[in-house]
Amino acid sequence: METDKPILLSGIKPTGAAHIGNYFGAIKQWKEFQTIGSHQCYFMIADYHALNFVQSAGDMRDLTHDLVLTYLAAGINPEKVVLFKQSDVPAHTELAWIFDTITTMPYLERAHAYKDAEAKGKEVSVGTFNYPMLMAADILLYNTAKVPVGHDQKQHIEYARDTAEKFNRIYGDTFTLPEEFIVPDVATVPGVDGRKMSKSYNNTIPLFSTRHEIEELVMSIVTDSSGDRPENVYAIHRLLKTERELDAVYDEHQGRYKALKEALVEDLDAFIKPMREKYHELASDPRTVADILEKGGQLARERANAKIEEVRRAVGVS
Amino acid sequence: METDKPILLSGIKPTGAAHIGNYFGAIKQWKEFQTIGSHQCYFMIADYHALNFVQSAGDMRDLTHDLVLTYLAAGINPEKVVLFKQSDVPAHTELAWIFDTITTMPYLERAHAYKDAEAKGKEVSVGTFNYPMLMAADILLYNTAKVPVGHDQKQHIEYARDTAEKFNRIYGDTFTLPEEFIVPDVATVPGVDGRKMSKSYNNTIPLFSTRHEIEELVMSIVTDSSGDRPENVYAIHRLLKTERELDAVYDEHQGRYKALKEALVEDLDAFIKPMREKYHELASDPRTVADILEKGGQLARERANAKIEEVRRAVGVS
Repeated sequence: METDKPILLSGIKPTGAAHIGNYFGAIKQWKEFQTIGSHQCYFMIADYHALNFVQSAGDMRDLTHDLVLTYLAAGINPEKVVLFKQSDVPAHTELAWIFDTITTMPYLERAHAYKDAEAKGKEVSVGTFNYPMLMAADILLYNTAKVPVGHDQKQHIEYARDTAEKFNRIYGDTFTLPEEFIVPDVATVPGVDGRKMSKSYNNTIPLFSTRHEIEELVMSIVTDSSGDRPENVYAIHRLLKTERELDAVYDEHQGRYKALKEALVEDLDAFIKPMREKYHELASDPRTVADILEKGGQLARERANAKIEEVRRAVGVS
Repeated sequence: METDKPILLSGIKPTGAAHIGNYFGAIKQWKEFQTIGSHQCYFMIADYHALNFVQSAGDMRDLTHDLVLTYLAAGINPEKVVLFKQSDVPAHTELAWIFDTITTMPYLERAHAYKDAEAKGKEVSVGTFNYPMLMAADILLYNTAKVPVGHDQKQHIEYARDTAEKFNRIYGDTFTLPEEFIVPDVATVPGVDGRKMSKSYNNTIPLFSTRHEIEELVMSIVTDSSGDRPENVYAIHRLLKTERELDAVYDEHQGRYKALKEALVEDLDAFIKPMREKYHELASDPRTVADILEKGGQLARERANAKIEEVRRAVGVS
């Protein structure tokens, strides 16, 4: 594996079954970077972030295992990228602590996720409040050059950049400033109810749905009765086909929502089927997942340990 | 080194030269536990806590080195106890993060140190806010049974106990609940200005002062002109001699503050001299410190790594 390329890092929290929003919002771009080969890619299972939401050992193990299968079935190739579990690299939490000591409360209180959770009147966990520092550590520990994010996640990168700059100012030049790569159109993957597709809205189309599940979910898509073209159906369809291809279909079945939904079922199933088959094939061999995580963890630790040692010397604890 | 005894853990932040308040408030009790042999003692250099205050690599290294010399010169025996540096055990910050995820903001906002800092209108660091979770990790990682603290530090142990209970409730029985050992009279060591002796008040008598420094500091002790007995002089003197011994001295020199201060100088110098000599003897051999920390770090890591693995299995990341 080449290591002199610039680093690209991204991750997903193992908090629930992956859906097509995750695919088009993240994994698809990861595959493109994997294919282009311009970057050394690190794809992380953000299990220490997930601990804020998943507080059962059995669930955490199942969700983590499932997320590795998801990455693999969706085409991530562990021979080409470093696929690893955050908790296999203790330097992440060590660096997060160091960042805590140079970060002020008012600065962290301005983070969107915290403000949103506070506004909802929830009892926010310290981990939810402090997660921008763990995320800054995730990114900066690998001298990451590029982080693919959606428009709504730009602030994460700003926090990582700010923190890198502040550390460099206090302790001398140590961290590379990461750049965001804004994933095109990511915010526009709608769920079956028309809102953004999200586990928390319970409006997702799972990535490995059976044909029957696809049928049920597509038929449940909320449509307005005003126009010729059911927008919520079209928006999902648009992920799978070009505008030109769809024009033909939507002209042919103009106003006939059921036929258009049936066309979407066909296209979704054609898209999902190979991944679904790969997923079930991989699921029958649990050793594969363990081996991949072991190898990925080792590669990630090598790089992270070298960096944390540099940081430790910079702050004077080594 | 026996490891089946109950664990006692304590630590000092390397944030400035040790003073006689640190000795009588902490190290003296540590030596007693070391002598009694009832506990396996872990004495920690809390450098990751110190990062909230010391943000220069050179200072951090010097202060850490100096604190090891202080422990040794004051009579801590690394053959009998585990003397280690917090940052040599990455499991501390890993466990602090895990605790962050099960702790609510309102609970942590109630911590004294944070409320005090907020009340002073300071820009508090996230590390200062979050330190009770790192301290809970420090304590719980070693299955600590006993933590010697002053009256004003009881809340630390309450936070560690609460956090242990909450973790055990969510994830099953994992942590021993620590007990505090309230150090007698610790709060009453006054500085030369009559306030509590503290680095932050700049009113200390450093533990390895020269005879000349002792003279200057004692002569600068603020005395009221009302009574026969200068209370601030007496209170320091009381650390070194029994009430009965002092009665004789203070009766003899009744009302003659200079003579009483001279008596204190003699007693302080007699107390400090052997430690001062040991300190300078040790300072000439930097390898000793490095060797002690390496051995202590290894012993601490062995125990901490076994515990963090237990925790990781409990939350489902291992």
